[in-house]
Amino acid sequence: MLGNTFGRVFRITTCGESYGSGLAVIVDGVPAGMKLTNEMIQEELDKRKPGQSELDSPRKETDIAQIFAGLGQEGLTTGAPVGIIVYNVDRQAVHVEQYRKAKHLFRPGHAEYTYFVKYGAHYDWCGAGRASGRETVGRVAGGAVAKQILLRDNIEVLAYVQESCGIRARRMGFEEVKKNYRKNPLNCPDLEAAEKMIAKILEIKAAGDTCGGVVEIIARGVPAGLGEPVFDKLSATIAHGLMSIGAVKGVEIGAGFRVAGMKGSECNDPPYIENERVRFRTNNSGGFLGGITNGEDLVIRMAVKPTPTISLEQDSFDKTTMREAKLAAITRRDATICPRIYPVAEAMVRIAILDALFMWRGWEGVQKHVSA
Amino acid sequence: MLGNTFGRVFRITTCGESYGSGLAVIVDGVPAGMKLTNEMIQEELDKRKPGQSELDSPRKETDIAQIFAGLGQEGLTTGAPVGIIVYNVDRQAVHVEQYRKAKHLFRPGHAEYTYFVKYGAHYDWCGAGRASGRETVGRVAGGAVAKQILLRDNIEVLAYVQESCGIRARRMGFEEVKKNYRKNPLNCPDLEAAEKMIAKILEIKAAGDTCGGVVEIIARGVPAGLGEPVFDKLSATIAHGLMSIGAVKGVEIGAGFRVAGMKGSECNDPPYIENERVRFRTNNSGGFLGGITNGEDLVIRMAVKPTPTISLEQDSFDKTTMREAKLAAITRRDATICPRIYPVAEAMVRIAILDALFMWRGWEGVQKHVSA
Amino acid sequence: MLGNTFGRVFRITTCGESYGSGLAVIVDGVPAGMKLTNEMIQEELDKRKPGQSELDSPRKETDIAQIFAGLGQEGLTTGAPVGIIVYNVDRQAVHVEQYRKAKHLFRPGHAEYTYFVKYGAHYDWCGAGRASGRETVGRVAGGAVAKQILLRDNIEVLAYVQESCGIRARRMGFEEVKKNYRKNPLNCPDLEAAEKMIAKILEIKAAGDTCGGVVEIIARGVPAGLGEPVFDKLSATIAHGLMSIGAVKGVEIGAGFRVAGMKGSECNDPPYIENERVRFRTNNSGGFLGGITNGEDLVIRMAVKPTPTISLEQDSFDKTTMREAKLAAITRRDATICPRIYPVAEAMVRIAILDALFMWRGWEGVQKHVSA
Amino acid sequence: MLGNTFGRVFRITTCGESYGSGLAVIVDGVPAGMKLTNEMIQEELDKRKPGQSELDSPRKETDIAQIFAGLGQEGLTTGAPVGIIVYNVDRQAVHVEQYRKAKHLFRPGHAEYTYFVKYGAHYDWCGAGRASGRETVGRVAGGAVAKQILLRDNIEVLAYVQESCGIRARRMGFEEVKKNYRKNPLNCPDLEAAEKMIAKILEIKAAGDTCGGVVEIIARGVPAGLGEPVFDKLSATIAHGLMSIGAVKGVEIGAGFRVAGMKGSECNDPPYIENERVRFRTNNSGGFLGGITNGEDLVIRMAVKPTPTISLEQDSFDKTTMREAKLAAITRRDATICPRIYPVAEAMVRIAILDALFMWRGWEGVQKHVSA
Repeated sequence: MLGNTFGRVFRITTCGESYGSGLAVIVDGVPAGMKLTNEMIQEELDKRKPGQSELDSPRKETDIAQIFAGLGQEGLTTGAPVGIIVYNVDRQAVHVEQYRKAKHLFRPGHAEYTYFVKYGAHYDWCGAGRASGRETVGRVAGGAVAKQILLRDNIEVLAYVQESCGIRARRMGFEEVKKNYRKNPLNCPDLEAAEKMIAKILEIKAAGDTCGGVVEIIARGVPAGLGEPVFDKLSATIAHGLMSIGAVKGVEIGAGFRVAGMKGSECNDPPYIENERVRFRTNNSGGFLGGITNGEDLVIRMAVKPTPTISLEQDSFDKTTMREAKLAAITRRDATICPRIYPVAEAMVRIAILDALFMWRGWEGVQKHVSA
Repeated sequence: MLGNTFGRVFRITTCGESYGSGLAVIVDGVPAGMKLTNEMIQEELDKRKPGQSELDSPRKETDIAQIFAGLGQEGLTTGAPVGIIVYNVDRQAVHVEQYRKAKHLFRPGHAEYTYFVKYGAHYDWCGAGRASGRETVGRVAGGAVAKQILLRDNIEVLAYVQESCGIRARRMGFEEVKKNYRKNPLNCPDLEAAEKMIAKILEIKAAGDTCGGVVEIIARGVPAGLGEPVFDKLSATIAHGLMSIGAVKGVEIGAGFRVAGMKGSECNDPPYIENERVRFRTNNSGGFLGGITNGEDLVIRMAVKPTPTISLEQDSFDKTTMREAKLAAITRRDATICPRIYPVAEAMVRIAILDALFMWRGWEGVQKHVSA
Repeated sequence: MLGNTFGRVFRITTCGESYGSGLAVIVDGVPAGMKLTNEMIQEELDKRKPGQSELDSPRKETDIAQIFAGLGQEGLTTGAPVGIIVYNVDRQAVHVEQYRKAKHLFRPGHAEYTYFVKYGAHYDWCGAGRASGRETVGRVAGGAVAKQILLRDNIEVLAYVQESCGIRARRMGFEEVKKNYRKNPLNCPDLEAAEKMIAKILEIKAAGDTCGGVVEIIARGVPAGLGEPVFDKLSATIAHGLMSIGAVKGVEIGAGFRVAGMKGSECNDPPYIENERVRFRTNNSGGFLGGITNGEDLVIRMAVKPTPTISLEQDSFDKTTMREAKLAAITRRDATICPRIYPVAEAMVRIAILDALFMWRGWEGVQKHVSA
Repeated sequence: MLGNTFGRVFRITTCGESYGSGLAVIVDGVPAGMKLTNEMIQEELDKRKPGQSELDSPRKETDIAQIFAGLGQEGLTTGAPVGIIVYNVDRQAVHVEQYRKAKHLFRPGHAEYTYFVKYGAHYDWCGAGRASGRETVGRVAGGAVAKQILLRDNIEVLAYVQESCGIRARRMGFEEVKKNYRKNPLNCPDLEAAEKMIAKILEIKAAGDTCGGVVEIIARGVPAGLGEPVFDKLSATIAHGLMSIGAVKGVEIGAGFRVAGMKGSECNDPPYIENERVRFRTNNSGGFLGGITNGEDLVIRMAVKPTPTISLEQDSFDKTTMREAKLAAITRRDATICPRIYPVAEAMVRIAILDALFMWRGWEGVQKHVSA
């Protein structure tokens, strides 16, 4: 209860699970007068689609987005909430039966035990239910709407795989990332490092195992002044949004955990004035001072754990008898979720930024930008 | 706007700033029939008081907590919201004048530029205003109320300094931490490591600089099943709460950022059955599966940046003329905020856990535990 | 923004408009283990369907409800949010063109001027858009879910037309209302009074005009103790919900506006004890003391204004030129909305009661009742 | 839980009860740069003070408002939440003992039975606790802050007693009401009708009884376009706010319950154009179309029940033994709450309007008006 809505004044509410009929999002706070098409939503959804490379699960989901509410007769938004639905297509009876047969066994690293505890015997045991990665369809569709509104303000958000299997991409700026990050199936803009990561991932995959990584999100063009002290700092609502993504175990901004070993004189970003605008020579702050944006790029990272489903036998237990048991290897899985999770990170950060922008400018202010 | 409330059904709303008359918290969701005294609040407030050692700022705040609402004639809670006020005592005119003189100059690493952008010429320039560490008085007082309710369920939360200046405490369990973490001014339970950290901090302080660290929070006794999928996972609301503390630049749970280099077979915590209860041999998950508690200890870490106020000259700019300028060394400051921020971390985690417990048990269920 | 969600911990979020592709509701807070079928939703939707008698608009909407999310493989709820979609069927191009032609003209009593002011030139001009009565499809579908949960607690809510055209039904108890209120197209349980009302309504309709009425809602079986002081009294959240229905201009509970002329000694309901339970000899309070339920029937009334669309020429103005103009008679309309608005009132009251019940019992408590 | 906060982006959170140490309000969403003094708060508080005439309770409360947070060194608001505290002064031990002696007996029409059910044996039995009229101190103090912000936009809200004991003031416009409504202790601007009402009230009082009335609220200068479809129509959030006031049993807008007997052709307000602005010849809508403001005066009425405390013996029961009993006459009471409840109504309507204005203009937009 309460858990399926994100955002305060620009907000998404989602529903849908792995083996239900469909997934949907209702996007509240969409100003009137903006062009919004199925294709704009589809473009984002396609980024998170499985089966795009040998790094992903072989599940085939075409994920066709249909905007069914919120558009006027001319196809422009009207100020009404936007409704988007995506029907589940690849729900084969054979897979349901596989899940049914194994439903008494806990899959290590998965949410099914905690869902079982919370919802009781009638929790959704099929394909991880609402805890499945498919849940993110609604987030990404909602984020696609946010993207269109932010673009009118020249606010761009992108996320890419920065690290995997102990290999880290070299530091690069927003423009270089933007140019290269979608050139390989891993969505890592350091093309050389990416090759090494992919080789390593495939090696791990061949051994029946999986791996995690770090996804970095950069937001460019965010005006200074966004975020509400003290509990709703934009850094805090972004952390909330990213940590709510399954598989994410850590969130940091700017220098992040490195600040633990820094001195104040190193960590403070020295300011200077450029064209009558305040700039900072370094960005250890990640674009936030007191949790409010300072006009620099927002830089956020999140830690993604290895896919828990592996092709190796594991210790487990039977949820019904509460006895220990062995879980056999499972083959239909992602070697790493990193290349599919980055659009979800983009979506959450976009929604959080837009929500803060709405608090600042109000409906009137945001709408003025949109229809202009 | 909206930003001064934390929690959904158990919630705190705070006000007060560095150089106002006082700070207060209204705690909503306090069940009836519980003993609650000024001393219980005071005990927690005293943990965050400045001037406790040479690591802290010399500001002297006695911080006397007064419960002024929410108690019946017998001194027990009544179900009404609890109001607590702490008057600011150490507000000397001389300090106000110091701040007034320097108010046009941006202090690197501080929130004053972003507050200036957001609130305009009339932002609070005195002692960092609402962005001051004094703001946390309300959080800690609210957390003290949460603590009393959680204790009735045998839920204990503690936070300690795990790392500073590149020195890290050895791993230790809840009981060992509990026994030792308050034995030194740094609140680090590895007494040997603490000595080294303190020596290093004092060395850095002597050089006019400051340092940061990592605070770890452990929660014991949290029942399995807390947290609301998908956006209000308990891990996400805790991340929100911790990232909302000034100076925090990262939050991670369990293995945290280390998952980026792990394999699925390493990262998955193997389950076993002990006394008919599910346990896990490792705790890489930090006590969360799918963001819902799994019955193990919650383990969370947050990165604390070095105090931005340093005794060294720094590059700055004049907020009124937008010209570059130099900021002189400042002497009244904390060498590190770590030993004073841990009670704030405890408070935020307690409030988030209790809020999730309320969602689960309802007022009726929580109250039953309290008055029993 | 923010406006399309109702409820705090049991909540509905709706989208969809008069001439969009479809309408949907996401219901958050549905406990696991409950049977929920399309037919259960359909039964409630059918109550608000137009074209059921000569009192209604001739618009033909079959309104087929499809639950597309929130059900497990056995058709039981799983704790995940429930998604329900209803596609708009009767969207004929000819009607769109009629609306397009007249869109510059303000229809007196309608929301289109205020939507125009709020959303600008791109507001939805077709069939009243989101301000249309069709918006209530989502409310009623959401209320149908609430109904199923409440039934497990033996909480029943019914609404009926109590007054129209100056004719008022005689006072009757819950059982008598329940037995008779659906026996005529007006949904008025005083069958004699209903006949007179219907005759009068048809007479007014024949003259090209419309009429309003009063709908009374009775809730039986609501336990004492629901509602949160001080702002979220259950009486207040119900008033919020009912006043949010288009066409509603007043809400009262118990003796309502009659209290203005009563003395304290008349208005106070004398208590007595029956089977060790507190009862009251009268119900001027409408079942609320201090906004919290007292165990008696909840009795609420709402005033419904006459349908603003009439078959008579009216003064109007052109929204684009801001000049006065005449609006011609419109024929496709409801003579009175009363017989179609009662299921919406039932839905809103059910949702508000269930939301308060969730606050009281928590997810755990509500779920226990559901799966039992 | 959740119940002590009103408003979404401009919001008040209150605490305090009849016989606690004090009452407070935290006002979130106050823009920076506005003059705000204790006197501005005091002026509103004084309106609701008891003991102003023989119509009121003889309780003496000086109610001194102190702003303790949210002001900068120059006494202007800073964007931080404003904290206001009022200490309870007239808490005599003799009264506490009176309440203690009678605490087992239910007072008809009071909330103590429902508080007892909800909060159990430890509910606040002293002076009605949080259900006392003293709770409204926080509302009125918060509304006083809202008033200052609204005044900068020339939005004025006033409430007056329109009806009592069956006597009704004649209809009068905003200016006439404003000029006269505070000229008598009843706050009724129809001075002749007021005399008759007062005579009648004193007569009823002399007989040991009490009476109720109708309070009308008029808001002038509210721009068109405020309120969020569909659930957060401004009419709905106002109804929520007013119905949350103890003693209020009904809320209506514009023609209110009279619409039940009107025809569409009568009820629709005919528009015309005046100085290029849309006006309406009548105001049956009360200033709302589709729940959004249309630029006309907002006209709202609420029904106030007679004070339940009367000087006559009444049927009652013992809450501890659950046996019937008699309650003796009580003498310390208000003959009618009407003349003291009107400032509470003003406060709630102001807060709801300002909250909607914030949604529309955002922090940036509202702040611009304030500091200008």
